[in-house]
Amino acid sequence: MAPRQQRHNKEEERPEKVSDVPTPCFLVDLDKLKNNAAAMQSRCDRLGVQLRSHTKTHKTVEAAVILSGGRKKSIAVSTLAEAEMYAANGFDDILYASYNKQQTSQVMCQKLNNALGLFHVMLDSKDGYEALAMAVSDKPWSVYLEIDVKYHRTGVSWDSDGVVALAGLIAGNEAMTFRGLYCHNGDTYYDKGSDALRAAGQESTKVLIEVKNRLLQKNIPCEVVCMGSTPSCSHPDESMSMLQEFSPGNYVFYDLMQKDIGSCQMTDIAGRVATRVIGHKPELNILIIDCGFLALSKDGMENNLPDGPWIIQDNQNLRLVGMSQELGKVTQEEGEIDFSKYPIGSMLFIYPYHACATAAMHPVYYVHSGDSITATWRPTRGW
Amino acid sequence: MAPRQQRHNKEEERPEKVSDVPTPCFLVDLDKLKNNAAAMQSRCDRLGVQLRSHTKTHKTVEAAVILSGGRKKSIAVSTLAEAEMYAANGFDDILYASYNKQQTSQVMCQKLNNALGLFHVMLDSKDGYEALAMAVSDKPWSVYLEIDVKYHRTGVSWDSDGVVALAGLIAGNEAMTFRGLYCHNGDTYYDKGSDALRAAGQESTKVLIEVKNRLLQKNIPCEVVCMGSTPSCSHPDESMSMLQEFSPGNYVFYDLMQKDIGSCQMTDIAGRVATRVIGHKPELNILIIDCGFLALSKDGMENNLPDGPWIIQDNQNLRLVGMSQELGKVTQEEGEIDFSKYPIGSMLFIYPYHACATAAMHPVYYVHSGDSITATWRPTRGW
Repeated sequence: MAPRQQRHNKEEERPEKVSDVPTPCFLVDLDKLKNNAAAMQSRCDRLGVQLRSHTKTHKTVEAAVILSGGRKKSIAVSTLAEAEMYAANGFDDILYASYNKQQTSQVMCQKLNNALGLFHVMLDSKDGYEALAMAVSDKPWSVYLEIDVKYHRTGVSWDSDGVVALAGLIAGNEAMTFRGLYCHNGDTYYDKGSDALRAAGQESTKVLIEVKNRLLQKNIPCEVVCMGSTPSCSHPDESMSMLQEFSPGNYVFYDLMQKDIGSCQMTDIAGRVATRVIGHKPELNILIIDCGFLALSKDGMENNLPDGPWIIQDNQNLRLVGMSQELGKVTQEEGEIDFSKYPIGSMLFIYPYHACATAAMHPVYYVHSGDSITATWRPTRGW
Repeated sequence: MAPRQQRHNKEEERPEKVSDVPTPCFLVDLDKLKNNAAAMQSRCDRLGVQLRSHTKTHKTVEAAVILSGGRKKSIAVSTLAEAEMYAANGFDDILYASYNKQQTSQVMCQKLNNALGLFHVMLDSKDGYEALAMAVSDKPWSVYLEIDVKYHRTGVSWDSDGVVALAGLIAGNEAMTFRGLYCHNGDTYYDKGSDALRAAGQESTKVLIEVKNRLLQKNIPCEVVCMGSTPSCSHPDESMSMLQEFSPGNYVFYDLMQKDIGSCQMTDIAGRVATRVIGHKPELNILIIDCGFLALSKDGMENNLPDGPWIIQDNQNLRLVGMSQELGKVTQEEGEIDFSKYPIGSMLFIYPYHACATAAMHPVYYVHSGDSITATWRPTRGW
């Protein structure tokens, strides 16, 4: 049977210019991405914190090379598919920031633990601990304990007795090394503006350092405290210098959600969807574009924002008001569309609401510097 | 550089039982799928209509073989990636049900038109016609004219003068063959129940036959009238025997949206997401599952249904109330969750709201008959 995941002509022949890309496609502005990478690294350097860039948003080798400053070290991943790809491409010191009890995951984690210099897993329960304790490995498992500060998703509640008990179990198990604490302070997604983000970062840090001190009082050494979330790492409070690692992910591209939170400016957004006008419906005041939900994702629509979650670049009077699988409907906020401004085949650029969701829809990213396409990147996917 | 799209162990070693699948994953119930295929074929046979099964929902070779009754003929596709895959796997008589003016698409369409016995494209505008007229091909382009009955997305308005003018242009061009009319009567998605669906199908058919008659009066032969949409093809009106082709797509899996419309019963739904419980949060009355928006998509959330868009099989008291990228939060409608019923590692099955969106999130489908995994299918993706 012929191969399923074919790379058809548009992918074999890299277009020279942004204006030549096949649509719909995901465009990555390399200069903005590099700026985002440098700005985050510089914040970490100033605070004396190690950057453990989370790869979940881009899932590419190329972006991770840039985000790790070319070192190919110290990353966090959300899936084993990512971990495998990075391990196969020479990355080391990888935190698999999601641990569950599947047998298949254990086999793969064992392989990674044996193959890499540093591979870390994350636990947040006694069940997870017991499963890991049964998993054979050539060398001890390096374990982060996930702490729930106030996001209330995963993690052991910071103020529970379970924190000390679980850290003690890990530290006391010869087949494990207790590396420290991990916290995704996702509650910062509900904040707005740099002052609020700094205050939230300060509060999370205070709590995590309290937890660390409780462990130290019980003679449990806690080498590393790692805190994620793009909002708080984009506007870090000075007290975050008490942490050892930052683990943000979304900042590679940023997006409209981060702009609304205040993590970034509009001009920092490095990922867009390119689409072309493929139909005029003057009787409905509608442009048809070749960007449907398979290119943009519906992420953000659940918020029912009055103007919708997206922005069409340089056309803020236009609104994407509907999407089916491969088509989008664009109307104008006030008045009738001047269709002569948007001939069939003309290109529009849509800023995603949530880059993590939008990038995941694309088998290839078209990377550009200014108007020139400089590379195509192929993210991994699946689990 | 090592390959990016790796197939890791879980994919190489096919699990034997549904209970062994890695999670999250997309499960396809082969028996239900075959029933859906047979029921649609039987409706077409009874009405004397050819089935041109639309592949956009599943995008796999294997499902298309079943849906075409093993003939590998007469399908509709939504992307050139699909068209290429089917052409490479011996399919013929392929309608690319989305035509736009990109140069890259034209090159690929030319290849397909030359390679296949029957390849059809679709037009709905003079711009599209003019672009196609410029595209060189070894043999005439077979063209469907897309008609907008009342869905108001793409297509020429059925009652406009443009219909006859455009059909006349196509029929009069030696480099083209006017095959007939195509209509995606997506307005049926707003109907409820088999009576309403039959009435909608009757109305669309009446309008399309009127258009056909207007063409015949102008001596424009109209060999085929093709109508899509799973709702109306699942409960066809008898008058739909006046059509030559049905082109539904979603019926391969059906989903909760189709169940709500009345296209299918709950027991017809052939696609589910398998997920495992990976955390207990008794203090929040929450189960954490390993199904986030990358496994289920957020499609349906924009409707703000009071109980959410999804159903967790055999656990209708449970509600999926939140998703981040790789995690879902499940709570219980009333009272406290009995966590002993849902141990860590236990499996739950989620019915998608929109199978087209959910299936697209998965690099592999796990196909089962009863409890046994019989195959893995790899859909194509991209454009």
